[in-house]
This record gives sequence, structure tokens and C-alpha cells, in this order.
Amino acid sequence: MAGSTYGTIFKITTWGESHGKALGVVIDGCPAGLPLEERDIQRYLDRRKPGTSSITTTRREEDAVEILSGVFEGRTTGTPISLMVRNTAQISRDYSDIASYYRPGHADYTYDEKYGFRDYRGGGRSSGRETVGRVAAGAVACKILEQLGVQVWAYTRSIGPIEADMDKFDRAVCLSTPTAMPEREADAAAVEYLEKAKGETDSVGGCMECMVSGLPAGIGDPVFEKLDANLAKAIMSIGAVKAVEIGDGCKVACRKGSENNDAFRIEDGKVVKTTNHAGGILGGISDGDRVVVRAYVKPTPSIFLGQSTVNQSGEEIEVHIKGRHDPIIVPRAVVVMESMTALTVLDAMLVNMASRLEYMVDFYQK
Amino acid sequence: MAGSTYGTIFKITTWGESHGKALGVVIDGCPAGLPLEERDIQRYLDRRKPGTSSITTTRREEDAVEILSGVFEGRTTGTPISLMVRNTAQISRDYSDIASYYRPGHADYTYDEKYGFRDYRGGGRSSGRETVGRVAAGAVACKILEQLGVQVWAYTRSIGPIEADMDKFDRAVCLSTPTAMPEREADAAAVEYLEKAKGETDSVGGCMECMVSGLPAGIGDPVFEKLDANLAKAIMSIGAVKAVEIGDGCKVACRKGSENNDAFRIEDGKVVKTTNHAGGILGGISDGDRVVVRAYVKPTPSIFLGQSTVNQSGEEIEVHIKGRHDPIIVPRAVVVMESMTALTVLDAMLVNMASRLEYMVDFYQK
Amino acid sequence: MAGSTYGTIFKITTWGESHGKALGVVIDGCPAGLPLEERDIQRYLDRRKPGTSSITTTRREEDAVEILSGVFEGRTTGTPISLMVRNTAQISRDYSDIASYYRPGHADYTYDEKYGFRDYRGGGRSSGRETVGRVAAGAVACKILEQLGVQVWAYTRSIGPIEADMDKFDRAVCLSTPTAMPEREADAAAVEYLEKAKGETDSVGGCMECMVSGLPAGIGDPVFEKLDANLAKAIMSIGAVKAVEIGDGCKVACRKGSENNDAFRIEDGKVVKTTNHAGGILGGISDGDRVVVRAYVKPTPSIFLGQSTVNQSGEEIEVHIKGRHDPIIVPRAVVVMESMTALTVLDAMLVNMASRLEYMVDFYQK
Amino acid sequence: MAGSTYGTIFKITTWGESHGKALGVVIDGCPAGLPLEERDIQRYLDRRKPGTSSITTTRREEDAVEILSGVFEGRTTGTPISLMVRNTAQISRDYSDIASYYRPGHADYTYDEKYGFRDYRGGGRSSGRETVGRVAAGAVACKILEQLGVQVWAYTRSIGPIEADMDKFDRAVCLSTPTAMPEREADAAAVEYLEKAKGETDSVGGCMECMVSGLPAGIGDPVFEKLDANLAKAIMSIGAVKAVEIGDGCKVACRKGSENNDAFRIEDGKVVKTTNHAGGILGGISDGDRVVVRAYVKPTPSIFLGQSTVNQSGEEIEVHIKGRHDPIIVPRAVVVMESMTALTVLDAMLVNMASRLEYMVDFYQK
Repeated sequence: MAGSTYGTIFKITTWGESHGKALGVVIDGCPAGLPLEERDIQRYLDRRKPGTSSITTTRREEDAVEILSGVFEGRTTGTPISLMVRNTAQISRDYSDIASYYRPGHADYTYDEKYGFRDYRGGGRSSGRETVGRVAAGAVACKILEQLGVQVWAYTRSIGPIEADMDKFDRAVCLSTPTAMPEREADAAAVEYLEKAKGETDSVGGCMECMVSGLPAGIGDPVFEKLDANLAKAIMSIGAVKAVEIGDGCKVACRKGSENNDAFRIEDGKVVKTTNHAGGILGGISDGDRVVVRAYVKPTPSIFLGQSTVNQSGEEIEVHIKGRHDPIIVPRAVVVMESMTALTVLDAMLVNMASRLEYMVDFYQK
Repeated sequence: MAGSTYGTIFKITTWGESHGKALGVVIDGCPAGLPLEERDIQRYLDRRKPGTSSITTTRREEDAVEILSGVFEGRTTGTPISLMVRNTAQISRDYSDIASYYRPGHADYTYDEKYGFRDYRGGGRSSGRETVGRVAAGAVACKILEQLGVQVWAYTRSIGPIEADMDKFDRAVCLSTPTAMPEREADAAAVEYLEKAKGETDSVGGCMECMVSGLPAGIGDPVFEKLDANLAKAIMSIGAVKAVEIGDGCKVACRKGSENNDAFRIEDGKVVKTTNHAGGILGGISDGDRVVVRAYVKPTPSIFLGQSTVNQSGEEIEVHIKGRHDPIIVPRAVVVMESMTALTVLDAMLVNMASRLEYMVDFYQK
Repeated sequence: MAGSTYGTIFKITTWGESHGKALGVVIDGCPAGLPLEERDIQRYLDRRKPGTSSITTTRREEDAVEILSGVFEGRTTGTPISLMVRNTAQISRDYSDIASYYRPGHADYTYDEKYGFRDYRGGGRSSGRETVGRVAAGAVACKILEQLGVQVWAYTRSIGPIEADMDKFDRAVCLSTPTAMPEREADAAAVEYLEKAKGETDSVGGCMECMVSGLPAGIGDPVFEKLDANLAKAIMSIGAVKAVEIGDGCKVACRKGSENNDAFRIEDGKVVKTTNHAGGILGGISDGDRVVVRAYVKPTPSIFLGQSTVNQSGEEIEVHIKGRHDPIIVPRAVVVMESMTALTVLDAMLVNMASRLEYMVDFYQK
Repeated sequence: MAGSTYGTIFKITTWGESHGKALGVVIDGCPAGLPLEERDIQRYLDRRKPGTSSITTTRREEDAVEILSGVFEGRTTGTPISLMVRNTAQISRDYSDIASYYRPGHADYTYDEKYGFRDYRGGGRSSGRETVGRVAAGAVACKILEQLGVQVWAYTRSIGPIEADMDKFDRAVCLSTPTAMPEREADAAAVEYLEKAKGETDSVGGCMECMVSGLPAGIGDPVFEKLDANLAKAIMSIGAVKAVEIGDGCKVACRKGSENNDAFRIEDGKVVKTTNHAGGILGGISDGDRVVVRAYVKPTPSIFLGQSTVNQSGEEIEVHIKGRHDPIIVPRAVVVMESMTALTVLDAMLVNMASRLEYMVDFYQK
């Protein structure tokens, strides 16, 4: 099926494979009048590039974005914005080995079962490079949200057993540490932990978190289009994510109602909550508090350590996967989580403009 | 927005409020030729009724389903199946109190912010009664899946601190215990725990799990329509769910790649996995193994214990919520999880029939 | 497939067969705050009832609508509005004859080919009674449009060779003549023509037209979601419609550019067109002028005159279709056209609220 | 709104403006396994290029297509196929004149009203060049349909008053005449007529027709997703089309039922119709006969003859539109109609595979 389209009003369609000619996204339904240039998008793409630190792949991916349509005289026109990134770093090498067997933890087997064959070069469409289109679109969504006073921030919450101390949270730190952690102490410990795992030719999992501040109450829709339901889909659709939590997440299962309910009170004449166990969403609709989402990410499945698997001739074999793989997915996936969250929230805000007759009368009678 | 429609080919639209005239669902896109009668659906609705045990509400909800369209001479015709349940048990009482304030942990405040006012009787559309339509549709989906050899089973995994021992799993037990737990020892302990909480006029959270057996490999789609992404949305859209896990879920964040990857091997000439950390899904597509999904559910927010909140006049007040509320949501939500899982899996299977040109040629050339 | 859902924001799902228990529609995405009661809808349903004149069927169809959900204290809540009409007039008779053969001009054969069997009672889902749900939803759409100053009027333009003189157009006349023609002279001639055809046990085709006044410029979207494209789909989806025109329609094919272009000029400081060949739509987007749509409707296919056909045993037979059939479809279809037009225009207006960033900033910053 | 996406399973998203960097389309949901190379698509794009005859613009448009993704080792992989055509022929000239006023018959005014400003270079997104993406996608749809034995052929039916004699229909002639007419005599007369209009610096309208042969019975869905409804939308969405007919179209309005019904009979053991007034569709579902669709196209609105209009300063002015414009739209739009028809029919065929339970059981049990 058409699985590469996301959104109702702000609708994106991504395309491209790891080792194809290019990757990209078409954004259809972007409101007209947004000032937009390539560097607005490039800033986000640069955050998903492999860094220069010891804990990322040594591959270089330039990922320079080109705006092909939808912007005129520096502003979006309301028509489709086509964004493209040419693949330049893909080394032309012999793939005959990975073509012949199923890598554990990867989608090789399932793509073969579904489609009858697969583009085996670097994982094809199931590669993490697929997220280039998501991040390019997310950059546009974030730029709009900023104009509405809404901020979307994702960062690394934990790597293996090392968890960030959220009392020391600093947004600037998230953007400068190799781990995308929000404080330097945990970052240092995590780098050490990662280097050790890398030395063992193994890989490591982790947890990333995203918070949305400034979101007004009333965003999201009942029943199936709940804001948290759509966030869960958006985040779970990122490769390697195996769990999604809203607010206190799994912990609520061991709570009493008296502990878990957030009391309401009045502050500066406004209704606010005294706590935020709910993560900013009640009944699928934002409550004006900070929205908090967490994603648990499996270790990079490509490891050099020996693994048992089968080849396409039906033989059981042992493999050692070569290549320049990140020992952890999380730090580069943080900006993908930020993008998917921004896309989801923006779309819900656009849809929400049609929720009351009085809004419609105001709009068309003025 | 139109938040009450779900699915691409097998598309359902639910409607109805807690204290309205009726609740229901329209299923559009159900394949023609399925033998269907009301008792097929009633069986599932009966599982979400309050039981007669000490741990459920004393409300009675008959919830007798009526098939209004789409079935002729005992079989589905391919046209919309309209299912309706009349509300009969709703006691006509004075709602002026709950109309006037915002119940903590409920959607009262967010609905007011979104729509300008709300149907406050029993929670209106945000009530758990909204799931009547989901379960009625889920019953139809399950009946189709059975014919395809696919079984969807949900049950209670834990209640507060009491967890079921999965080595003693027994499907028949799930269907007969008041807690919907799969083994009798945990059930007994959980009932005791719940009675204590009920005595304290408090409520309790829990965890439910769903497994899908017999699902062929190749179901689900890349990128945004991944099977796990759609399951996450489907399950997170159930009121009170705050976290969704696939396979080993959150645990993967603390694993090494060498621990978390599932090796492939050959068994009876077929490719199988030696473990199932992945929960039956790789790259968003089913791998032929059992699909495992888990949902963490918050405690019932309606409790008699005193809570701080605000009323619509903007005053801070303390409330004691009266009424016949379940001390826990999970046991009655299990069949809702089963329904949402079945709807998601069935829709993915229908869509998958169009995934290869050879399937199309086979279909139209024969 | 799920063919019974229509609309993006204001989304309707209709259900029900000619001789089933009931027919209905679920409206999801209706803005909150619209005053709505059953008689608002009944007024529209009454217009599609068979009349008492000589030119309609002698069947009686009460078609009393019931609002089952989505309205609280007299206003829409923003959640699904479920509307139902019980079937009461369906005579229990022996259908074994029409079950056994394919009526010319009907969907009997095509439904059998698609679904393997069909609900043959009165045409099942392919009956004109299917439009009950469309009209009930259309009544709600029209009520909203009125509040926005938009009027949607459909009427009979011609019956067989008899065409209405549009210079004598009178809306009140449309609503009172048995033919739904907008002037009495043509109405009288058409009634005579119809009675003659009825006497010959034959049937007659015709043309209906719909105009939308008060629609602001800027409604509709580029490329595939053009306002005229969506109107064409909406109107062509009404059974028996075989052609749809916008503005001057087919006539443009014989025109020169210099004849067909509508010049712009300034009137009271506003941009207006001097003519309206375009029918109020340029590039798929409304231009502020009156929108004009026309639909050409085939004669009622059920006639008593002898026809050749085949039965399900594969034998060629001659049939005389009995029953109380209208000799013409148009007069009762006019309100269906009005409904489908209103639904399409309203949905485009809702979607349009998200078309500019400045609208979004205005909405969320105030 | 997102107006540039079309289709349910075979879903296309087009992008690009007349004078932007490039135009393109993303096809998502194309079945895996189709052999595809650039020349398959180029063949169709070449048919919408301006020709070398006297009746087309003297602009040159190379329109060389590039496949950017979704094809591996010469076959489609089931993932998005991104197709791009770089704009090379766009002359960099001064647009300040057409930027300042509204061209009659164009979308300048309506885009300004909707979006607040517009890309005025060559019409921007409302230009006929937008159809590059449709045709590129249509070529892929046609290639699949051919493998299923379905042929889609469009051609010019009439130009101004000159109508083709369908008894002399020759597919090869359609592809070789400058007018895309199916017989040489009408072609010659039409060329003469067009040259005269061109000499008068005026333009001309016309009619195009499309037939679908080999389509099995049972394709299309009830109510809103009728095959004819979707064809009407698809064809009306082509710029300049003002009317769409199915089968005998407008003519049915003057017919009697006894004249218009198509009788069924048995031929070689199969049910067939003796006539085809219905144009191959009954109740919205294909009946196995040839599908016939007709579109009426207005004259090119850009003419040099003097026209009255207004400028953005609100002054009434007279304009003479310069530039190299085709004197007629039809011949180059024929392949667009063919593409939109193919896309619609293919999508309906893909969706139809899920219409019966027995199909599903067959598919998954084998």
C-alpha cells in the first residue's frame, strides 16, 4: 500500500532508498506565506548527519537539500513543496553477500516475503536514510510552529543504563553533545559506555524523549484521532522504536487513581494542573500543559559480532556484518522524533481550526 | 475533525455518547460473503459488560446489538454494515454537579476548550461506552480472521503490582476470570488487591497484552503504515492507555545488539526466528512469528477520595466523585484491545493483497 | 471498498438498503455549536418523498428521521451525528422473479459480478433509497451554509424535450411544483408529457441544475481537489446521472477564446466578472460569482414495457417490470443534488480555513 | 489543502510549477515486480510535448524524465517511485506585466484570493505544465493495465464544429495526427480551422474521448466511489475541462427508458449487452462492456485579441496576452485524459481485489 504519506491537511510523502539516486519529500498542504529557504531545512538535516565524534559511523553524508517547488519570492505558495537530497556518499561496492542472506533484526526477510524481492543495497527503503524526507518536512513544520509559539524539543533520555538527570536539562547542551543528551555528565558517561560497546563490536539501545511547550489546550480529536494516538503512530513508525509512552507512561499501571490524577487549580486566572502525570493530554486532546512523549529504541541491529541466520538457499550460516555502522541509533534519531512530533502537532492544529461553528462564522463573515 | 473513522479498506465509523439514545458503528468495506448474525457480535459485547463480580460497577448494561444493514440471507453483502446498541441503563439523574466542574483525569476540561461546551452526562463521547462500536466491529474482524487461521487474544497481564505468570497461560481462563487474567493464582491475588483499593474508595491501574498467532509474514507496509505504528495508534486511541510496547518494548533500550537481535534458522523447511524479542514485526512488516503488543492503562480517574479541582466559575473546590465506577479499567478494556488489534491486522491483510503485480495478474487472469 | 464515506473534514458515511430495517448516515466532523433538531432535517427528507401528484409512485415512504447522537441541549457537540430513518413502507412480497434475472439499466448484474450475490429486494444498496442518508446529511450542511450566507438551490431544468425558461425562475415555485421546475408553464407542459409516457408504461429522462450563491472567492484547491472536480464526483455519484457540466459546460467546445473568457471589471470596489461562462470556478477555485452545475439524468430504468434480458440460469427472456415506479427520477433527485453540492462546498470551506499562515497566526494568537 | 494527491492504493502526488526548477510525481503503492524503465514513461511524456505542426506553440519542452527511486534491477520494488522532469525551456523574461493584472479565464485572481499572492511566472501551479506529473504516473498505470489485458485510449473527438467520424476510427492515426483525431479527414479540416483561428489571434475549444477496453465486470464501488464518479472527478480535475459525460451522456435526458436501457443477452455463454448507452458502467460498477468517457474543453484562455480586465491596483484595463500559446488545448490534453482514466481504473481494480471473503481465503490459504 501507499505507506509513505502522512498527515491530513499538512500532508507529506517521502521517497527514496539508501543507495538510490536521491531521497526526498513532497509537502502538500503547507499554508501559504511562510518565509522558507534551504538553510531553514539544512539546519535540521545536519542534526541527523553522522557527527565527527568517536560514537558515530565514519561514513560521510553531505545531505544537501534542494527546494524544487512550492516557494516563490522566498515564501511558500500553498502548493506542493518538493525537497530533494541527492545521494552522494554511497560507496559502490559488492553487495552480493548481504543480498544472499537475511540480517537478524533487519527487514530483509520481511521485505522479501512481502514483495518477492528487495533492494538490498544498504537496506533500500528500510534504511535509516529514509528519514531524510521526514526531517526535511519536520523542519518546515517546526518553523510554522515557532510562529505560533509552540516549541518541539527532542533529546536523548538514556543510553544503555546511563540516564540523563533532567534537573540539569539544557536545550543548548542537547544540540551540542555527541549523544544529544541534555546534560554533560551523563553525556560523558554514555560516550564511555558506547566506546566500550563499540570496542566489543556490539551495539547499544536507548531512550529518547520529546516535549512540546506552548501548545494551547483543545488540540487533538476524539476517539481514533486522539493526539496521543497519532503521536504513538508517528513515533512508532520510526525504525527501531519498540515502545512509546505518553506522560508517565508504563508507570501508571502500578499507580492508584489518587496518585495518578492531576488536580486542577487556577493560576493567573487560568485553569492549570498541579502535576503532569498525563503528559499534557486528556481524552486525546491537549490540556495546555507540556506534552511529553518517550520512545524506546533497540540497539543497532548491524553488528560485527557473530550471528546465526539463514541464506536465500535455505542454509543456516553464521555472519559478521561489516560496514561503518553507528553503535547506537538514538542520537541521530532524536531529530527524527522531533520532526514526527512537529508534523503531528501541526496537522492537529490545522484541523482544529474547523472545530466550532463560531470559528467558521468569524472566519467567513469578517 | 472527523476522528471517529478508522481503517483503509475495512473502514469503521463509530458514534454515540454515554447517555445518548444509542451507540453504534458502521463497517464499510467488509468483504462480501461472510456468514454473520447478531450473536456473533453479542458474544464480544458481552465481554465488555460489567460482570457480576465484586470488582466491577453495579451498573447493568444490556448492550443488545441490532444489525440494521449490510447482511442479507445471513451473509455480508459488501455494503455498509450498521450495528446499533440502544442505551437502556442510563439513569436519569441530576448532572448539575459534574456539569459545573472539571473532573481530574477526565476530558471535561479539554472538550470544553475544544468545542466550547460538552455533553457532561456520563462523560458524553469521551466515556468508555464509546468502545461499544469498536467491539462490535472487532467481532466482525475477528470472525474473518478466524477463517484465515489468524487468532487474536488479549488478556490482563498485570493489575497494580500483581503480574500473571505467563507459563501458566490458559486462554479459557482469560475468558472466565473476573480480572481477565490468564491464570487463576494471579487472578485471586488481583481480586483481593482490587477489593482493598475499592474499600479505600481508590482505583488501580494495570497492563493488558494482546497476541496475534497465525499471521503470515509480509503483512504491514513501509514507513508510516508500519504494522507496529498502526497497532500503536489503534491501542493508544483506547481511553486511559498511556504506553504501548511491541515485543520486548521498553526493555530493548538497555540491551546490546547481540542480546536483542533474533537469529534466523530453518525449521521444517521454513525460515523462523529462534527468539521473538521483536514481537513478530521487523521493519514494520510481520515476520511470521507471534505478534505481541502490550498496553499500560491508568487507574480509573473517577474516585470518591477527595480531589482538588476547579469549577466553571473559576473557583478552586474539593470534590468526591460519586457513582458506580469500576475500580479498574483493564478487565473490561481487554476485549477493546483485542478488537482494535483485529481491526488493524485485518485491514493490513486486505491492503496487502495488492502488493505485487503477480498477485494482480493471478487475480484478473484466472 | 469502503465506498460509502464522503468528505475530508465534514465526513459522512451512509448505510442502508431499500428493504432493510433502516437507512442512515453518520456525520463526523460537523463543527460544534450548530443548533439542530429533527425538523431541520425532516424538511429536506420530505422533499425527496414521493409526492401526491400523478407523476410519482403511489408508494408511501414516511421517512421520519431520528437523531441518535451528536446533539446535546439542542446544539451539535462536534462528535458524530448519527441519523436514522426506519423503513416502514416496504411491502413484504415475493421477490423470486427479480431475484432470478438482471433488470436492464440496473445494477443487478454488476453487483452479482462484484460480490457474488446481491440483496435483490428493491435493488438493495443500489436503490434510490440509498440517498436518504445523503439528504439527511445535506440538510445539516445547508443549515451551516445559511449561517455563512451561502445558498444552494437545485431544481429541474428540463424534462424530456421541455425546458424551463430561466428568465421566469422563482425559487418558491421550484419547491411547490410536482416537477421541481422553477416556473409554472414548463411544469404544466412537463406534467402532461410525463403522464403520456406513464400511460405508455415508459419513462423519461431530464436535466437538473444547482446554483450556489454567496460563495466567497478562494474556495477549492489546486490540481485534484478542484472545487469543480469534487462537484463532478459528488453529482456523478448520484445514481442515473450520466453527465455533469460546470457553467456553460459542453458548449465551450464550440467556442472561441474571445467568446468564452469572462472579462473582469470593478464594481463597488470589488473585482467581478462581466459574464459567467465559467460557472463561478477558475482553476478549480471559486471566483466569487454564482457556481452553476448541471446534471443529466437517464430515464427510470424500471419500465413495464417489454425488455429483453437474461436470467441467472443463462437463458434469454423477456420481462415486464411491475411495481410502483416513478416515470422520472429528476424531481425527487433535485434535493439529492442540492445535498451533494452543499456537502462538497461546505467541506471545501472548512478545509480552506487552513490555507494561509496568516489565518493560522490570527487564529492561535488571539 | 493537500490537493495534489490522488488514489487509494495506487496513490500519486504531483508537484511543480510552470517556471520552477522541475516538476514531478511520487507514485506510492505501485505493486512490486513491474519491469520499468525511463523510456516507458518518456513515450507518454512525448505525447504531451508541443509538436512541430502549425497548430502548436513554438515553445520547446524537452521534458526528459528521470526515475529517482522505487526501481531496482529494472523492476518496481513496491516502494515510492519518484519521477522528475527538470524545467529547461523556461525563458527568463520580464513577468512584471502579467504579475500586475488578472488574465481572463485564468486562475490568477482565484489563487490571489485564496493564498494572498501567487507564482505568476507562466501560471505557476495552475499551468498546464502541472500535468507532467499526471502523465508520468499515467504511463506506469497503463503499463500495468496492459499486463491485465486492459487498454485505455484517448483521442480528440471534435475541434470547434469539426467532429471525427468514429466509423473511421484508427488508433494509429490518433497517435500520428497533429490534432490527435482518429481519422485523417477530420484532422485535415480541423488543422485548417485552427490555422484560421490562430491567424485571428483567437483560440478554439474541443472535445476529447477516452475508451477503456478489456475491463472485467465488477470494478468500481457503490455510492460515493462509483467508477463513473471517480472518472468524473479525475477528468474534471484537468484544467479547462467544463463537462464530463459517461456513455451517451447528456443525450439520456431526452430519451425514454425503452430507448435508453441496454438489453442483456447471452453470447458465447457470457452475459453481454446488445447496446452500450450506459458507457460500460451500471450502478457505478463496470459491466464488462467498453467504458466511454467524454470531456469538453474550453478554448485556450491566453489570446492576443484585446480583452478587458483589472489590474492589482484595481484599475480596469485592456490587455493583449503575448507569448507562444497553443490555439487549442485538446490535442496535448488527450494523453492527460488517458493518464487520469488509467490511474482511476487501475486503483479501482486494486481495491476490488478485497471485495469478497472468498478472494481473501483463496489468497491467504494457498
